Amino acid sequence: MRAVVLMLCCLLACPSIGLATNQQSNNFDPEKEYARAAAQIVGSSLVEGAAYERLSYLTDRIGHRLSGSPQLEQAVKWAVETLKADGLDNVHAEPVMVPHWVRGDESAEITAPAKHRLSILGLGGTVGTPAEGITAEVIEINSYEELEKSAAQVKGKIVLYNAPMRKDLPPFTAYGDAVKFRGTGASNAAKYGAVATLVRSVTTRSLSTPHTGSLRYLPDLPQIPAAAVTVENADLIHRLLARGDKVTVNLKLGAKTLPDVQSANVIAELRGREKPDEVVVISGHLDSWDVGTGAQDDGAGCIVAMEALRILAKLNLRPRRTIRVVLFTNEENGLRGGVAYGAVYKNALEKHIAAIEADAGGARPIGYSFEGKDGDFAKVQKIAPLLNSFGAGEITKGFGGADISVITNQGVPGLGLRPEPTHYFDIHHTEADTLDKISQLDLSLNVASMAIMAYVLADMPETLTRQ
Amino acid sequence: MRAVVLMLCCLLACPSIGLATNQQSNNFDPEKEYARAAAQIVGSSLVEGAAYERLSYLTDRIGHRLSGSPQLEQAVKWAVETLKADGLDNVHAEPVMVPHWVRGDESAEITAPAKHRLSILGLGGTVGTPAEGITAEVIEINSYEELEKSAAQVKGKIVLYNAPMRKDLPPFTAYGDAVKFRGTGASNAAKYGAVATLVRSVTTRSLSTPHTGSLRYLPDLPQIPAAAVTVENADLIHRLLARGDKVTVNLKLGAKTLPDVQSANVIAELRGREKPDEVVVISGHLDSWDVGTGAQDDGAGCIVAMEALRILAKLNLRPRRTIRVVLFTNEENGLRGGVAYGAVYKNALEKHIAAIEADAGGARPIGYSFEGKDGDFAKVQKIAPLLNSFGAGEITKGFGGADISVITNQGVPGLGLRPEPTHYFDIHHTEADTLDKISQLDLSLNVASMAIMAYVLADMPETLTRQ
Repeated sequence: MRAVVLMLCCLLACPSIGLATNQQSNNFDPEKEYARAAAQIVGSSLVEGAAYERLSYLTDRIGHRLSGSPQLEQAVKWAVETLKADGLDNVHAEPVMVPHWVRGDESAEITAPAKHRLSILGLGGTVGTPAEGITAEVIEINSYEELEKSAAQVKGKIVLYNAPMRKDLPPFTAYGDAVKFRGTGASNAAKYGAVATLVRSVTTRSLSTPHTGSLRYLPDLPQIPAAAVTVENADLIHRLLARGDKVTVNLKLGAKTLPDVQSANVIAELRGREKPDEVVVISGHLDSWDVGTGAQDDGAGCIVAMEALRILAKLNLRPRRTIRVVLFTNEENGLRGGVAYGAVYKNALEKHIAAIEADAGGARPIGYSFEGKDGDFAKVQKIAPLLNSFGAGEITKGFGGADISVITNQGVPGLGLRPEPTHYFDIHHTEADTLDKISQLDLSLNVASMAIMAYVLADMPETLTRQ
Repeated sequence: MRAVVLMLCCLLACPSIGLATNQQSNNFDPEKEYARAAAQIVGSSLVEGAAYERLSYLTDRIGHRLSGSPQLEQAVKWAVETLKADGLDNVHAEPVMVPHWVRGDESAEITAPAKHRLSILGLGGTVGTPAEGITAEVIEINSYEELEKSAAQVKGKIVLYNAPMRKDLPPFTAYGDAVKFRGTGASNAAKYGAVATLVRSVTTRSLSTPHTGSLRYLPDLPQIPAAAVTVENADLIHRLLARGDKVTVNLKLGAKTLPDVQSANVIAELRGREKPDEVVVISGHLDSWDVGTGAQDDGAGCIVAMEALRILAKLNLRPRRTIRVVLFTNEENGLRGGVAYGAVYKNALEKHIAAIEADAGGARPIGYSFEGKDGDFAKVQKIAPLLNSFGAGEITKGFGGADISVITNQGVPGLGLRPEPTHYFDIHHTEADTLDKISQLDLSLNVASMAIMAYVLADMPETLTRQ
């Protein structure tokens, strides 16, 4: 609100600057202008929507879609065919070279002081172990400060990062806090001579459910194998160590990285009727981890973007500007799709009015996070009342999304579609990320939310202006 | 209450029969007589209790304890040593021959219409498959009625029993309803020529968590392999079939049954000060499945029984009659321990005042189920007020427990310790049945509940009389 007041003061003080435009902006009332369109969109999404059926096809019939897998390329092909069949404009795939990491067979067990099979998932990008595995004593570490203090004890050991995901923070904040050990824990431990790392799965709820995700090896350090263990396993090792036992683990990872392969971003448009070169991007990522079926992460996001555009086209709601679906490839272990999009459209980013990303699951939508200038934030907030009727109108400042970060970093206003987050990290990057976790109603409401937001941003008389 | 009224009417009508005893019974007020003892027990269990530490040792340091495993025999040895160290009477192991089923390597995948790795656990007692597995089309069945109707389609197929555990029933009732397909589904499907069965895991909550458990092959039918799949996998197969796809699964089970091996029931007593040959049994079962660590099922029950007796001894609360801990072996896949106890003590069952079993986990205690005559039910209900102060005094009629069923079927009054059941079946027979699911306070309250109930039953002037 402070931003709006500042803007008004400025206008009063400088009546000659941009008055016409801003008068238009101040008079602009999306709730009045677009209520009819919003009602059509919601009705069509809930009654005639194909979202759930399409997500079922993508996840059940195609399956999980890790970069380098045949399933990801099957998904690219299916998405192109489907968007063409929807009668959209400019449907095509834009080639992107992506990493090709494969998991291979993997297993781990505590070998002393008692035998326990561990439930693990190698981290995406990890190197493998020798065939007989790595057997070493475990040292438990709960912070990087503790790692540094324990540096002398780390050499030759397997480091277990065991800081629990906090329950007292909002889920996405808690995730961001806990995930650092998954990301760079291996390199930081290798610095002191660790031979492998285990990381407590980043979740607050577990039924013996390991969570994978990317690691990132830092330059000039040995690359050591890294896997996630379940919360249960991490607690077990903690208790054994706490009673004074030496804990020895054998870790076997068959992971390897093969040469890059070609994948693609998928593009489809509803061309603008007045300013077709001005673009609102709506997006998700087609790739997923190689466990579960990537229903929440990010099958839902892709389907929501695809469905939003299909419904607008079907309802003949062609906006002034172009709405472009982008289904990014390789978000999970490379962000190569996002980077490629930024490169291909480098000279068109000035005409990118906004980019919306859906990559937070398919639960009931509650709003958007907005990443951009205060003036634009105020404008986007004016759109919220159209979403409030179904509880989806909470616009807050925050991160737009990983794939669009490449272009939001260049100044494109970004919006992240926000579903209710409570249970997202229960199943994130696990075998349990499957369709049964998503309700058809929730998914359809996400479609409606994205279609309304994209339509208004693409059609409103005055664009977001990076104020 | 109706039972009590009937009993009173009978007494008034027949004043000469058993008056002295029944007057004693009517005047008997456990709340008054045993409040001091109960307070001592609760205080000792919560402040000086060893339950959580002992359960940690049993589950973390020894591990899971399937019949035939070295861990089970390690647990037997540990229990004998521990009970002796507690200074209890007549501590010994009573040999029992038990089945020796081993799981071996196992895996399964959907091979068509899309590839999906399935998360499975072979059912306890299943036969194995050939090394290359069994590959066959899947037919989904939701009831035995449907199986009979579909008999002509079953031949050569893998039957998926996919009836969900009901959420509208109390958990133990819903479990009893759903578990029949795990128990006899393989044989019933084999009757019609099925080549294998998959059963939906018996649970209402899953994070890709398969649940094992025993099957029972019926006589004179082919023994076909059987495994549990996760709720997620069962739902996936359902959706694929519902869209008209043929679903083919490859199932590989390395399971086999080896010759029986020797195990043992563990016995310890606090001998009665007046009538040592009259006995109240308190019990759990030492064996567990070969996944997780059997913390709830039934490490908790064993520790609760052991601790109850240790605390009574420590407090010098030696009752009139004997309290006997029985840690049964082989409850999960044979009940051989329960059967052996019934055989060994066949001629002493008249002197078994009651048998209490703890085999429903370690959550907060809420009461007991009672299995016996109405007159005895009324007497047991009089003990409830001693437990009400910590919410554990709800005595209902119901099943006492599987191990004690051998002797309750012979007329011994049975009591089942009832912890709060909501989350028991989330982790039952899974890798997630681990210590972290149990709180120290809840476990200590179970100990207190069992010690109080056993002490009063063993000490009260008039025994339960199988009225």
